[in-house]
Amino acid sequence: MSEAPTREDFSVVRRITTRWADEDVYGHVNNVLYYSYFDTAVNGYLLDATSTDIRLLPAIGVVVESSCSFLRSLRFPADVEAGLSVTRLGSTSVTYDIGLFQGAERAPAGRGRFVHVYVDLAARRPAPLPDLIRAALEPLVR
Amino acid sequence: MSEAPTREDFSVVRRITTRWADEDVYGHVNNVLYYSYFDTAVNGYLLDATSTDIRLLPAIGVVVESSCSFLRSLRFPADVEAGLSVTRLGSTSVTYDIGLFQGAERAPAGRGRFVHVYVDLAARRPAPLPDLIRAALEPLVR
Amino acid sequence: MSEAPTREDFSVVRRITTRWADEDVYGHVNNVLYYSYFDTAVNGYLLDATSTDIRLLPAIGVVVESSCSFLRSLRFPADVEAGLSVTRLGSTSVTYDIGLFQGAERAPAGRGRFVHVYVDLAARRPAPLPDLIRAALEPLVR
Amino acid sequence: MSEAPTREDFSVVRRITTRWADEDVYGHVNNVLYYSYFDTAVNGYLLDATSTDIRLLPAIGVVVESSCSFLRSLRFPADVEAGLSVTRLGSTSVTYDIGLFQGAERAPAGRGRFVHVYVDLAARRPAPLPDLIRAALEPLVR
Repeated sequence: MSEAPTREDFSVVRRITTRWADEDVYGHVNNVLYYSYFDTAVNGYLLDATSTDIRLLPAIGVVVESSCSFLRSLRFPADVEAGLSVTRLGSTSVTYDIGLFQGAERAPAGRGRFVHVYVDLAARRPAPLPDLIRAALEPLVR
Repeated sequence: MSEAPTREDFSVVRRITTRWADEDVYGHVNNVLYYSYFDTAVNGYLLDATSTDIRLLPAIGVVVESSCSFLRSLRFPADVEAGLSVTRLGSTSVTYDIGLFQGAERAPAGRGRFVHVYVDLAARRPAPLPDLIRAALEPLVR
Repeated sequence: MSEAPTREDFSVVRRITTRWADEDVYGHVNNVLYYSYFDTAVNGYLLDATSTDIRLLPAIGVVVESSCSFLRSLRFPADVEAGLSVTRLGSTSVTYDIGLFQGAERAPAGRGRFVHVYVDLAARRPAPLPDLIRAALEPLVR
Repeated sequence: MSEAPTREDFSVVRRITTRWADEDVYGHVNNVLYYSYFDTAVNGYLLDATSTDIRLLPAIGVVVESSCSFLRSLRFPADVEAGLSVTRLGSTSVTYDIGLFQGAERAPAGRGRFVHVYVDLAARRPAPLPDLIRAALEPLVR
């Protein structure tokens, strides 16, 4: 994927409404919120695509690593669109590539990497991805 | 307005997407977030209805009082719809009645009162509502 | 309790550190955060006073009603002190009176009411306050 | 710095109180909050060390890049200690190394990288670090 991907370069796009207090004292969406959009796009996709409450599956995804490049400001009240692709689908982990877009701008305002490791709900040790999750993610692999 | 208003009882309805971490350890949207939805519905309406950046007007709305009755749980990932009416439009203040709805349920999950006092940007003393704000709010008065 | 209580008028005082993004675009702590401080003060007190993980007790406290008067601004980075008293200790519910203070100012920046109803963890129907919770709250009754 | 630094390996340590709703449905502090702790530790240090309202300086720090390794869970209500060092002090940017610690555990629960670029308040173009900021950061360079 190029350095400045567009919405079309991602496998799916999730819409997220911004909130008044997402903006900090500098009048732009605070950096922390970009990660909230990542977290919401990934888990929202999984809930919708599996039609299952993933919070009750025997293995759950916990974040072990994430990063973001902040490329331009986001502002309230326009919606954010989060493009989502999978760059690595392992036996117990998934790596997502995420782009955040707003308005007419074709280039992303934020670009992130987000790694989920699946762990069993009780002992929280690495466990295979549940089949439902794997099936939902295969179409997103780039 | 009846004790259990529906979406139709409000003057406008604003849609807000929920976020993964809106849910707390008890598996429902945390009480604090209901107020974030209020804040977002009111300011988002004003920004859209005035087509103006209300953050730059000579007088801004600051919250002096709010309250909420928590009537049922909200959950991620379904959207929340926030119904908005104005119950009092004063010279320097506005009182909103807000209902939060989700899914097929006709009754609100939360019902709130939210009072903005307008203050001048510099000294933060009560000031008349800007004309643009007043014009945007008049159609919401019940 | 008088209209403008001081820290000394509350039964216990909990310290909460503010965060950079607690401030919104208007350069003061956003109204929603006052409720986050209420929620944190109440649950933090209960966890500390019972030396028990209250999240695992058979009955948990869910908020059914809250309100706040916003009396002055709070700012980052100074700490907030949350004064806590109980104004009603019922068989299945508790009503808290909370004052938020910052710095040398003796009067509260926020004053709130926060009502927990205890419900059983499974069916979420009203249930008696667990004995541990009741014992922790009795010294706070005003 | 070793792979598993302790609090003593950082130049300064900032204390942050956790909040009830920092925990998500999985009963641990949500990944997004680790970045809120980073943001708060950096800006809180700068405000305290300069005794100046950095929000009013002619150049402000905006985050251009950040990342985190999530090594273990954090929980409410114990405090988080954020260790802070500077690994690169450039003419217009600063790179921080941050470790998050909780309780008796010597190893960090989270380890992050956080890059601020300074920009002038109006045009938001890269600008030299204000002298006050540079002086506050020099003792943190590792």
